[in-house]
Amino acid sequence: MRPIDFRSDTVTKPTPAMRRAMAEADVGDDIYGEDPTARRLEERIAEKLGLQAALFVPSGTQANQIAIGLHCRLGDEILADANSHIFHYESGGVSGLWGVQPGGLPGERGLLTPEQVTAAVRTDFISPRSRLLSLENTHNRGGGKVWPLERFRAVVEAGRKAGLAIHLDGARLFNAAAATGTPASAWASLTDTTAVCFSKGLGAPVGSAIVGSKEHIAEARRLRKRLGGAMRQVGIIAAGALHALEHHVERLAEDHVHARRLAAGLAEMPGVKVDASQVETNMVFADFPLPVQEMQAKLAAHGVLCGSSGMGPRSVRLVTHLDVSSSDIEEALVRIRRAVSG
Amino acid sequence: MRPIDFRSDTVTKPTPAMRRAMAEADVGDDIYGEDPTARRLEERIAEKLGLQAALFVPSGTQANQIAIGLHCRLGDEILADANSHIFHYESGGVSGLWGVQPGGLPGERGLLTPEQVTAAVRTDFISPRSRLLSLENTHNRGGGKVWPLERFRAVVEAGRKAGLAIHLDGARLFNAAAATGTPASAWASLTDTTAVCFSKGLGAPVGSAIVGSKEHIAEARRLRKRLGGAMRQVGIIAAGALHALEHHVERLAEDHVHARRLAAGLAEMPGVKVDASQVETNMVFADFPLPVQEMQAKLAAHGVLCGSSGMGPRSVRLVTHLDVSSSDIEEALVRIRRAVSG
Amino acid sequence: MRPIDFRSDTVTKPTPAMRRAMAEADVGDDIYGEDPTARRLEERIAEKLGLQAALFVPSGTQANQIAIGLHCRLGDEILADANSHIFHYESGGVSGLWGVQPGGLPGERGLLTPEQVTAAVRTDFISPRSRLLSLENTHNRGGGKVWPLERFRAVVEAGRKAGLAIHLDGARLFNAAAATGTPASAWASLTDTTAVCFSKGLGAPVGSAIVGSKEHIAEARRLRKRLGGAMRQVGIIAAGALHALEHHVERLAEDHVHARRLAAGLAEMPGVKVDASQVETNMVFADFPLPVQEMQAKLAAHGVLCGSSGMGPRSVRLVTHLDVSSSDIEEALVRIRRAVSG
Amino acid sequence: MRPIDFRSDTVTKPTPAMRRAMAEADVGDDIYGEDPTARRLEERIAEKLGLQAALFVPSGTQANQIAIGLHCRLGDEILADANSHIFHYESGGVSGLWGVQPGGLPGERGLLTPEQVTAAVRTDFISPRSRLLSLENTHNRGGGKVWPLERFRAVVEAGRKAGLAIHLDGARLFNAAAATGTPASAWASLTDTTAVCFSKGLGAPVGSAIVGSKEHIAEARRLRKRLGGAMRQVGIIAAGALHALEHHVERLAEDHVHARRLAAGLAEMPGVKVDASQVETNMVFADFPLPVQEMQAKLAAHGVLCGSSGMGPRSVRLVTHLDVSSSDIEEALVRIRRAVSG
Repeated sequence: MRPIDFRSDTVTKPTPAMRRAMAEADVGDDIYGEDPTARRLEERIAEKLGLQAALFVPSGTQANQIAIGLHCRLGDEILADANSHIFHYESGGVSGLWGVQPGGLPGERGLLTPEQVTAAVRTDFISPRSRLLSLENTHNRGGGKVWPLERFRAVVEAGRKAGLAIHLDGARLFNAAAATGTPASAWASLTDTTAVCFSKGLGAPVGSAIVGSKEHIAEARRLRKRLGGAMRQVGIIAAGALHALEHHVERLAEDHVHARRLAAGLAEMPGVKVDASQVETNMVFADFPLPVQEMQAKLAAHGVLCGSSGMGPRSVRLVTHLDVSSSDIEEALVRIRRAVSG
Repeated sequence: MRPIDFRSDTVTKPTPAMRRAMAEADVGDDIYGEDPTARRLEERIAEKLGLQAALFVPSGTQANQIAIGLHCRLGDEILADANSHIFHYESGGVSGLWGVQPGGLPGERGLLTPEQVTAAVRTDFISPRSRLLSLENTHNRGGGKVWPLERFRAVVEAGRKAGLAIHLDGARLFNAAAATGTPASAWASLTDTTAVCFSKGLGAPVGSAIVGSKEHIAEARRLRKRLGGAMRQVGIIAAGALHALEHHVERLAEDHVHARRLAAGLAEMPGVKVDASQVETNMVFADFPLPVQEMQAKLAAHGVLCGSSGMGPRSVRLVTHLDVSSSDIEEALVRIRRAVSG
Repeated sequence: MRPIDFRSDTVTKPTPAMRRAMAEADVGDDIYGEDPTARRLEERIAEKLGLQAALFVPSGTQANQIAIGLHCRLGDEILADANSHIFHYESGGVSGLWGVQPGGLPGERGLLTPEQVTAAVRTDFISPRSRLLSLENTHNRGGGKVWPLERFRAVVEAGRKAGLAIHLDGARLFNAAAATGTPASAWASLTDTTAVCFSKGLGAPVGSAIVGSKEHIAEARRLRKRLGGAMRQVGIIAAGALHALEHHVERLAEDHVHARRLAAGLAEMPGVKVDASQVETNMVFADFPLPVQEMQAKLAAHGVLCGSSGMGPRSVRLVTHLDVSSSDIEEALVRIRRAVSG
Repeated sequence: MRPIDFRSDTVTKPTPAMRRAMAEADVGDDIYGEDPTARRLEERIAEKLGLQAALFVPSGTQANQIAIGLHCRLGDEILADANSHIFHYESGGVSGLWGVQPGGLPGERGLLTPEQVTAAVRTDFISPRSRLLSLENTHNRGGGKVWPLERFRAVVEAGRKAGLAIHLDGARLFNAAAATGTPASAWASLTDTTAVCFSKGLGAPVGSAIVGSKEHIAEARRLRKRLGGAMRQVGIIAAGALHALEHHVERLAEDHVHARRLAAGLAEMPGVKVDASQVETNMVFADFPLPVQEMQAKLAAHGVLCGSSGMGPRSVRLVTHLDVSSSDIEEALVRIRRAVSG
C-alpha cells in the first residue's frame, strides 16, 4: 500500500518535465555572478512580486533569516504573531544567528491588528528595541490562513508609522494568491523584503528567494555567503524552481479544492473535530480522539501520513500538494475512517 | 514639598553609616583578585545562599546576563514566565549578548507550574533548544509575588528532569525571605545559579552578585571581564553592599508593612482599584482612573512619584523602601487622595 | 575565442554523465531524513575519510562554519594560519555567526609548527580562550601546499595536548591525496571534524560535507537547519557530488601535471616570476609585471582568465581543473606570452 | 618589606582626599538619569576631550566594547594594530559580544601608517567588511608609546577616506598629553568615540568613560544597560573619578620622570636589556635573563612586583604610578640589582 503523504507540501518529488529542465539547465559559477538560470529565476520572481531584485537561496529558512540580518541589529526585537514560523521552526536562528529577540503577539490564526502592533512597539533603552514587523502569508500555524489584503495593508501601515521595517514570510504566498485571485505582488510590494519558497506548494526540489530593493539584495548576497548559502553551478536547481514558477502556480487551486474535500470528509467522522470553514488554502487542522503522536502512528499504519499542527495535543495537520490527486483524497478518507473506527 | 518616591526600591540613598563603611573600606585591585572587601562580601553572600561561591558585579542585569552566558549556547531557549525581568528590562541582552531565545510561558503572577515546564521543553532540531529555566523571586511584574517554596521545588524538579539548568533571578529574594520567614538559601540552594541585588530593597548604592558552584563562578569571572564589569578597587562599593547585607535585611519587613498600609489606603479611594490581598512584599499595583503616564504626572504634581507596572494601560506601581517611613506612607495617602479627587 | 578559465577549480560545469546522474537521482525530503541519495553520499564520504558520519551541505563555507559552531562558544579563539580561508573568504562568519575570534599565526605557506601552537594557546580569563585548531589541506593561500602527514600529526598532537578541538578544512583534501598517494583518511581520521568540497576540483556543481563523530554530526544537523542549509529533495545535487566522488578523484593527478607544465612555461617568460618547485597540486602563483587587477584585465583580453592569490599586489593565481585540458595549457601559454610581451 | 608594585597603574589605592570626595558625593538613581555627580563628571570629561557628550561606565573594557557596539554590525572587521588591548585583554569581547572580527595590522610599537590602513580596507562581499579603525594612545603593548599628533591625524584621514568610523582607546590618553604638552582633545576631537579610564594613571578606584557625539552617547546608554554597566547611586565612584580628573592629571609627568629614571637604572645592570630611548610615558619594558614568570617570582621575592609585557618570553613590564615615589624607584633599583645578581 503506497502511503498517501499529507505531512507537508515539502514532500513532493520533481516531475519528469522538471527533471528534464534541471538536466538541461544552462549553468555558471554563481558566486562569480555567472549562472544564467539563477539570474533568470531571480529576475522573474522579483518582477512577479513587484519588487526590484531577488536572490536565490537554498531554503525558506535562509530567506527569512537573511531578512532578519538585513533589518535588525543585536538586541533588536521582531514583532510577529507568536506562532510564526520564524520563531518556532528555524532552529533558533532569530536569536542564534542575529541576536534578535522574538516579540510574539497573540494573533488570530496568525493575523494581527494595527492596534496590536502600535501598542507593542518599544523604543525606550531598557527594553529590546522593536525594529522589524514580520508577517506570514499564508500562515502555517494559523492553518493556512490568508491575510486579507486590506488588513495586511493596515497592519503594515501601523508598522511603518512606528518606524518598523516590514518583512513578509511568503513561503506559501502563492497559495494566498490562488485562494483569493489577488496577485502575490499586492502583498509583497507593500513590504521591504519578502521570502518565497519554491519547494513547498510549487513542488521544486530545492530553493527559495529573498526579494526586495536592490540595496537590500546586494547586502543579502554577503549574508548568504556568510551563512554558506552561496553555491556554484546552482542553475541545476534554479531550473527546477523556474519550472515550478512557470508551471505549478496556477494548479495550487486544485490543492485547495482537495483540502476542502478532505475537511468535509473528516468533519463527518465521529470523534474528529474539524472546522471546514477555516480551510482557506491547502491545510486542514483536525482534532482526533488520540494524542498527536499516537494518532500519527495509527494513521500511518493505515497508509496515511500526517503531521502535527503544533496547536494542541490532538491537533493533526494534513497538507495537500502536487503529489496528492483527487482520488488520493477519496482513498485517504476511506483509510482514515478505517483508522478512526478501528 | 519633598516628593515621596515610590518609583522603585532602587532610588534609596546610602545612609551615613553606609557611607562611612565605604569611605573606610579596605581595597585592592580586584582584577588581580586582591580586593579584601569584595572577597568578604562574596564569601558572605555565597554562605547566606547555601551555594559555593559568588562574584560581585555592577548590576542585577549583569548578574542575570552572566548566568545566561554560563548556561546557554547560541540558539538555545530560556523558559521563564513571559513577564520576566530578563525578557523585558535588560535591553535585549538575552538575545543581543548571548543569541538566546526567550521562551515566555503564561504564568500566574510570575509563577509557573511543573506541567507547564514539562510541556514547553523542546529538543528537536528544528526548534530552538530549551536549555535554561529561569525563575524570579519575588516576581517584579507579578507585583512582588513570592514563590511558595514547595511550588518552587516542584517546578525546579520538572526542569531538572527535562535536563534544564536552573537560574533564580533573586534581585528581591530577601523580600521573599522577609515575607515568609523562610531563609533565602531555601530557594537558592535548589538552583545552579542565583542572582541577588544589593541596590534594590537592601539600599546599597551599587552592586549585585551572581552565586553558584565554584566552576560556574570561575567562568563567570571571564564573562564579567568581557562585559566590562570587572572593576579595580571595587571594595569601595562592595563595602556598601556588605553593610547592606549586615544591616538592611531584617528591616525589609517594615517595607512590607508599609506596602500593605499603602494598599489598604488606596483601596478606600474612589476610582482606584487595588487588590490588597495580593500585596505580599514591597510592591503595590493599583489601577487609577487615568492612563499611566497622565496619572504619573498628576501624582508627581501632588508630590508622589510612582512607576508603571507594565501590566496594563492604567496599572501604576508603587514600591516601598528604606527611604519611605510610616509617616511618609500616611502623607502619601493624603497627597494621592488629593490627586485622585482633584 | 573561448577563454581558458584558471580563476578557480570552482568554475567547472557538470559533465553529461553527471547531469544524467542528477536527472535520474532517487530523492526524498531530506529534512525528514528521507533522501536516499544524500544518505548514500554521506555514508560514502564518511567511510572514505575514516570518520563515523557526514552531513551534506550547500557549500564549503557552510561546512567550515558548522564546525566552528560545533566546537566553539562565544568569545573563544580559533588558532590557524593567518592566511586561512575561514578567516578571509567566509564573509566574516567566524565572528559574525559564532562570536569567535580569529587567532592568526604566521605559517609557512599555510603550515604551522607544533611549537607555534603550544605557544599560542591562551586560557587566562582576560584573553579570548583558545578552543579550536583549524588546519587547511591543501592550503589555498599557501599556493595549494600539501600538509606532510607527519607534520600534520605533530601539530594535531600539540593542539590536543593543549585541549584544543581539531578541524580540517579539506576543501581540496583530495588534491593532497592525489599529490602524495596518501589516502585522504590519513589526515581526516586524526581530526574531530573535516570539511570536504565536491564543487572544487571534483567538479560537482554544488555541495560539500562536514564529517566527524555521530554526536557532532547529529548536532551539525541542527546548525545546518539554522543556517538555512537544510534542503528538501537534495538528492538531485547530492547525485552530482556522488558521481564526482566516484569518477573524478583519480583524475586530480592530471590537474597537477597541468599545473606543473603551466608553471614551467610561465617560468620561461621574461618578467614573470614563479617558483615551480612550489607547485605541489593544482595551483600556480605567479608574479607578473603589472598590478593584479591590470594584469587580469590584460590576460582576459588575450583569452586567459585568472585570479588574485591574495598574497601580494602582483601575485596572480592560476588554478587547473576538469575543464582545462593539456592542449588548453599549451594554448594558454601562447596567449599569456602574447599578453606579457604585448 | 613592603613590595614596590610596578605591575600596572591600575593598582593604586584612593587617597584620603579622594575617599572623602566619594563619601560626601551627592548621588541619585543614575538609571533614571538623576545622579548629579555622574552628570558633572560626564560633562567635564566631554568638554576636556572636545566632544559633545560622555557616559560613565565601570571599566575601560566596557568603554571600548560599547564603542565597537556603536560602530559595527555582525561580521564587520576592526582594523587596528595587532597588539591592541581590545584584541588581547578584553576576554574575547570584540567577537564574543558583537560578532566582529579583529583585523590586526603589524604596527610599529602600536603605530600604523596611512598606507597600511588604506591597503587593508576590504569591502567585497566575501571578506569581512572593514568598518572601524581603532587606535590606542598611549599604546600599552607598544611600551606606552605616544601617537605623534600629525601621524595620528594622517591615519585618521586615511580611515575616514575609506569610510571607516574612528575610535580611540585612550585608557592612557592623559599620559600622552602629559608627555607631549598637547591637550588630550587634540587627538580625541578627531575621533568618533574616545574611551578614557580614570582608574589607571589617574588613580581613581573604579571607572571609565565613553565619549562622542550626543547620538552615539544616547545609544551607548542602551548598550551600557545591556552589558550590565548601568548602576544606581553611581555618584559614589564617579566622585572618585571626578577628583582624579581634577587633581591627578598634572602629576602624570612625575610618573614619566620615574619611568625614565627606572629605565636608566635598569640599563646599567648586567644581563638586563632596556632601550631607554623608548620610554615615553609611564612604562618600561625590559628583557631579563630569565623567562618572564621565573623572573617575576624572583623579583617578587626581592620585594618588586612587575608584569609581563606580552611582547616576548623575557619581556618584563614595569609601570610607574601614583603609589610609587622617587625614593621607591631608587629602592626598587637596589632590590632589582640584588635579584639580578643574586
